[in-house]
Amino acid sequence: MILTVTLNTALDLTYRVRSLRPHASHRVSEVVERPGGKGVNVARVLAALGHEVTVTGFAGAATGRAIRDRLAGIDGLTDALVPVAGATRRTIAVVDELSGDTTQLNEPGPQIEPAEWGVFLDRYEELLAGTSAVALCGSLPPGVPVGAYANLVRTARSHGVPVLLDTSGEPLRRGVAARPDLIKPNTDELAELTGSHEPLRATQDARRRGAHAVVASLGAEGLLAATPEGRWRATPPARLHGNPTGAGDSAVAGLLSGLVEKLPWPERLARAAALSAATVRAPAAGEFDPAVYEELRGRVAVTGVVSAA
Amino acid sequence: MILTVTLNTALDLTYRVRSLRPHASHRVSEVVERPGGKGVNVARVLAALGHEVTVTGFAGAATGRAIRDRLAGIDGLTDALVPVAGATRRTIAVVDELSGDTTQLNEPGPQIEPAEWGVFLDRYEELLAGTSAVALCGSLPPGVPVGAYANLVRTARSHGVPVLLDTSGEPLRRGVAARPDLIKPNTDELAELTGSHEPLRATQDARRRGAHAVVASLGAEGLLAATPEGRWRATPPARLHGNPTGAGDSAVAGLLSGLVEKLPWPERLARAAALSAATVRAPAAGEFDPAVYEELRGRVAVTGVVSAA
Repeated sequence: MILTVTLNTALDLTYRVRSLRPHASHRVSEVVERPGGKGVNVARVLAALGHEVTVTGFAGAATGRAIRDRLAGIDGLTDALVPVAGATRRTIAVVDELSGDTTQLNEPGPQIEPAEWGVFLDRYEELLAGTSAVALCGSLPPGVPVGAYANLVRTARSHGVPVLLDTSGEPLRRGVAARPDLIKPNTDELAELTGSHEPLRATQDARRRGAHAVVASLGAEGLLAATPEGRWRATPPARLHGNPTGAGDSAVAGLLSGLVEKLPWPERLARAAALSAATVRAPAAGEFDPAVYEELRGRVAVTGVVSAA
Repeated sequence: MILTVTLNTALDLTYRVRSLRPHASHRVSEVVERPGGKGVNVARVLAALGHEVTVTGFAGAATGRAIRDRLAGIDGLTDALVPVAGATRRTIAVVDELSGDTTQLNEPGPQIEPAEWGVFLDRYEELLAGTSAVALCGSLPPGVPVGAYANLVRTARSHGVPVLLDTSGEPLRRGVAARPDLIKPNTDELAELTGSHEPLRATQDARRRGAHAVVASLGAEGLLAATPEGRWRATPPARLHGNPTGAGDSAVAGLLSGLVEKLPWPERLARAAALSAATVRAPAAGEFDPAVYEELRGRVAVTGVVSAA
């Protein structure tokens, strides 16, 4: 079983409006509701790939129930979310019909009480016993200590469970120092962590800071990996147009499934890049078309990277 | 007991952001959730005034449950909402911290099935038996016939229950033809109904179209009433600054409570204008401060209107 942790789960709403104008009133023509938060997205992709996956983190109030109701309908996915008193946040993506552009509104998330955090830590340790790999994903809700991911990385390592960390800012900085097996920053997160805007130099630097392996997602340019076994670039066949929401989460799912299947790095990277590209191309944010994925997978170019800083 | 009907109830969310910019990502710093829809707002004000009030209409899915959970905590208010399969809509008011301006996003509401509409009509007729006055408020959700309010007005009249109609567009036009006791249009709704932008002429015209009495809400200028007993203007003491959300609903609650208490028209209008002004002045949208209301009530100028078209 693969475990994904989403401390700040979300009910993701997509609204379609004609054109968003500040200080005007808008009729929303279409509403789509999905369970979200990075680790939940990763779990949905893993389940679609045929993996048994367990989701943990927090869920509370009506929005938390709405997420859990929807997760219950996904084959291969087990809900191990910890109930909290506060309300799970909503995120709202307002899509303009005219331009296709998106305006994002993100609620902060529920206040997590110390006792709730304690219940989660116990649940996490129980779940690690039957886990082949764990992904720690996304932002921290209010009340969770900034060193939370560092703590969760150490616990996973002490149980001998490979751990992937996908977050940003100070939680990433502290988490990296706890020596996770893999991090998957995007360009901005990597630059914020290392101070370098040169991806090759920055991935090397992130490894020196404690990450065993680093896979940076470079948007349309694909992935750049720095690992103990070597360095590679994975490039999708053509520049892809579409909605990048969830593309990074699909890449995480590809890397994690490749890890538990013990694929060689180039195959892991081809899978991750193809899943990410298939997600960009899908009509709905965060979904992917299995046929597009299979077709792209054979066409991702994975090349070794020779020189560095 | 006073009955309010809200066919398109809403979970009203107020988001605070620094400044809304299209196609950017925003962190919401504060989220306030309230049960909404015009008739629900009217009922909350009536309950705060000490009246026994029953709320009916439709509620469905997680958002419907969230509304019902909140209504359960209000003294004097009875929940007689009819469950439906579709999800109760959300409305989102995004308030800019910098300017105080508000951007509104309104979901359309659930599709009401013919069987659900039938269940509502039976419930409505049962509830009318113990009702001293009924208010029919707001927009129609998808699936409800455009002549719905005309039908509900006739049913109330056949039970001898005074009926107030507060809606807009074609549902208002058809509802007025069914001869409600009172309508409370704002300036735009009155102009759309009558074709006249001159309020005095338009209120007279609306009476000719079927409304027994018409109370137009003219924003900061207060109320203009055309009734079989005479015509009046009710003007609050000073131009008020604040959030006008819910001010019209508070005016409806004032008119309805004055009706069941058999107050003379000038007193009803003073109450409605004071409640409306106290709502504009309150810090939270749709709330009112009882002390401000009491203070304003004695200072509303109600004057007879002599000439007309």
